Amino acid sequence: MSEDNTTPPRRRLAAIALIGSLLALPAAAAEPAGPLTIARQGSFFVGGRSVASDTLSTLPAYAPSGTISVDQVYVRYQIPVEAKRPAIVLIHGCCLTGKTWETTPDGRMGWDEFFVRAGFPTYVIDQAGRGRSAVDPSRINAVKTGQAAPETLPPVVSAGQEPAWAIFRFGPKYPEVFPGMQFPLEAQAEFWKQMVADWAATLPTPNPTVPALSELAKTIEKTGLDGAILISHSQSGIYPFQTAALDRAGIRGLVAIEPAACPDPAKDDLAPYRDLPILVLWGDYVERVPRWAPRLKLCRAFVEAANKAGGMAELVLLPDVGMACNSHMLMQDRNSLDVAAWLAAWLDAHVPPRP
Amino acid sequence: MSEDNTTPPRRRLAAIALIGSLLALPAAAAEPAGPLTIARQGSFFVGGRSVASDTLSTLPAYAPSGTISVDQVYVRYQIPVEAKRPAIVLIHGCCLTGKTWETTPDGRMGWDEFFVRAGFPTYVIDQAGRGRSAVDPSRINAVKTGQAAPETLPPVVSAGQEPAWAIFRFGPKYPEVFPGMQFPLEAQAEFWKQMVADWAATLPTPNPTVPALSELAKTIEKTGLDGAILISHSQSGIYPFQTAALDRAGIRGLVAIEPAACPDPAKDDLAPYRDLPILVLWGDYVERVPRWAPRLKLCRAFVEAANKAGGMAELVLLPDVGMACNSHMLMQDRNSLDVAAWLAAWLDAHVPPRP
Repeated sequence: MSEDNTTPPRRRLAAIALIGSLLALPAAAAEPAGPLTIARQGSFFVGGRSVASDTLSTLPAYAPSGTISVDQVYVRYQIPVEAKRPAIVLIHGCCLTGKTWETTPDGRMGWDEFFVRAGFPTYVIDQAGRGRSAVDPSRINAVKTGQAAPETLPPVVSAGQEPAWAIFRFGPKYPEVFPGMQFPLEAQAEFWKQMVADWAATLPTPNPTVPALSELAKTIEKTGLDGAILISHSQSGIYPFQTAALDRAGIRGLVAIEPAACPDPAKDDLAPYRDLPILVLWGDYVERVPRWAPRLKLCRAFVEAANKAGGMAELVLLPDVGMACNSHMLMQDRNSLDVAAWLAAWLDAHVPPRP
Repeated sequence: MSEDNTTPPRRRLAAIALIGSLLALPAAAAEPAGPLTIARQGSFFVGGRSVASDTLSTLPAYAPSGTISVDQVYVRYQIPVEAKRPAIVLIHGCCLTGKTWETTPDGRMGWDEFFVRAGFPTYVIDQAGRGRSAVDPSRINAVKTGQAAPETLPPVVSAGQEPAWAIFRFGPKYPEVFPGMQFPLEAQAEFWKQMVADWAATLPTPNPTVPALSELAKTIEKTGLDGAILISHSQSGIYPFQTAALDRAGIRGLVAIEPAACPDPAKDDLAPYRDLPILVLWGDYVERVPRWAPRLKLCRAFVEAANKAGGMAELVLLPDVGMACNSHMLMQDRNSLDVAAWLAAWLDAHVPPRP
C-alpha cells in the first residue's frame, strides 16, 4: 500500500475510479489512432525585455551594437474542436526543451498530442533562455574581445549523458538499469539529442519563465478558454507554485511532475495555494536515488502543510496507483500514455470544467 | 516588366495561370478557415554526433565530464490527410529558428499550416546549433575556468534590431521604412522575440544541417511520401544546393527564398542541378539594399548557367508576378499567404505529384 499519507483517501479513490471510466482505456493504453482534427494552432511569445549591447557580435558581417529581446518564452499550442476542458501548459525540465512532451524517443505519440485528443487545449513552452527562447550572448563576446574577465562568463551547462543517467533514474548509476525500468533505452540516442545547453543559472530569481507563465495563464483565459493548469517537470517543478504565488489569475490547477523542489512549508507562505487543486506526481525508484529522495520528502511535507492550511494538494507515486517502474522521464516511458490517461482522469476529477 | 531574363517565359506564364485556378484564391488571400484535420504529426532529430567533454559545467549540481550529442537537427512535421503532393522542408535563416514559418508576428496563419492545408506534408526544422538543436558549451566553460584562452571562445552572434532593419529590408536604414513595405511593423516587438543567438559561424563547412537535410529527404521518401522539396531562407539559402550536391536521393526540388548565396557558376559544379526544379524567389527593394543586390546578381548568373547546363532553374522577383513591396521576411509580410499560394501553384506546376 501507499507510503503516501498526504493523499486524502476519498479523493484518491475517486481518481482511481475515474481511470477507465472516463477515458475507457485498457491496462496498457493503445495509442489513439485516426486523423486528428484541431480547431486552431499556432505559436507566440510571452514575456521578454529589451537589452542594449555593444558586444552582440565579433563577426564583420554583423554589427556589435544594437538592441535584442531576451527572457521571452516561446509557446506553441493546439486547441481541440471540443475544447471543453481547461487548458494545460506543459513546462519541461533542465537541459531540455518543449520537445520533452512531443513524439517519444522511440517514436510514439507525445503527451502534447494525447491531451489535445483528450479535449484539453495544450500549450507547450520553451523556458526563457532555452530552445526557441533567446539568450543574450553579449558576455561571451565581451570576454572574447578582452572587455570582460573570463570568470564573468555565464555558467552554461550541458548535462552529460553518463552523470544524467542516475538523475533520470534509468538506473542507480551509468550504465546500470533498474529492473523493469520503463524508459525505452533502445532509443536513448534520440533522447540524448533532445538535451540542450542550459542557461537557467544565468537568469534572475524567480526565473523570467514564472511571470511569463502568469501572462500566459491570463492570455489563455482571455482567449475564452477555461483557464490553465500548469504542469511542470523536474527543474521547472517550482515554477507553477511561484506563478500562483505571483498571481492566481487564470490558473485552475498545478501539477508538478517529479519536481526539483516544492514550496518549503518552513519558509514559504502557503496562502497562495488555498483551494487550488495541486498534484505532485512521482515515478518509481525515487527513494533509491540520493538526488531525489530528499525532494520527495520535502514535497510530502509541503502537501501535508498545504492541506492543513486549507489546500487541495495531493502527492501520488505511480506505483501506488498501479503503474510500476517509471523513470524520471515518465512522459516518455513505455507506459507514457497510461500515465497521461491517469493524469487526464485526475484532472477531470479535481479540475472539472466550469459549467 | 521583368528584369529577370533567366525565367523561361512559357514556364512563368504557366505558373501564373495556375494561381487561382488550382487554389482558387482571390487577389488578397483570405486565411483558410475551419478546423484542420491531419493524418499525423510529430517531431524527431536527424544527424548528430557524440562529443566527450570535461567542461560541460562549472556548477556543483552538474558534473563537468560526460558525453553530449550535438549537430543534430530538430524536425517537426504535420502530414495532411490528403497528402498527394511532395513534402516540403522549411529551413529558416540567420539568427532565427523554425518559428519563422509559424504564426506571423501579427497573429496570422504561418506557412507551416498553410501548406499542410494545401496538401503538402510539411517539415519545419531548427538548424544545427539553433533553437531546439543543441550547441556545445564546453569552450565557454573551459575559458571560464582558465583552461583555454578568451580569444578561443565561439563567435556567437545576436543580430541587433537596428542593424538588422536594413538586412530585413524594412527600410534603407533604421528606422526608415520603404514606401508600402508589407512587413507588419506594428508587431515588430513579437518579431524581435523570434531572434536567437546564432552559433552558425562555430560549425564546420558544410554546416551539419546539410547532411542532416539529406538524411531527412531520404527519411521522408522511405516514409512513403513523394520525396521532399527543400525550401531555404536567407542564411540557409545555399543549404538546399549543397544538399543536392551531396546526394539527390529523396529530393524533388529546391526553393531558395532570398538566399544569402547561390552556387557560384564560376567555381561550382552545376551537374548536381540537372533536371531538378529550382526556384530562387525574391521580394521587393532588393536592388536598393547593398547587402542584397550583389546576391541577386550572383543568383541570376547561377540560374542562367544552370539552365545552360541542362537545368530547370527559375529566378522570380515577386513584383514581376504582381506582388509588390515585400520585405526579406516575405513569409511574415501582410500578403504572406498570397506569396504562399503563388509558391504552392509554382510547386504544382514544376514539381507535380508523381503518378
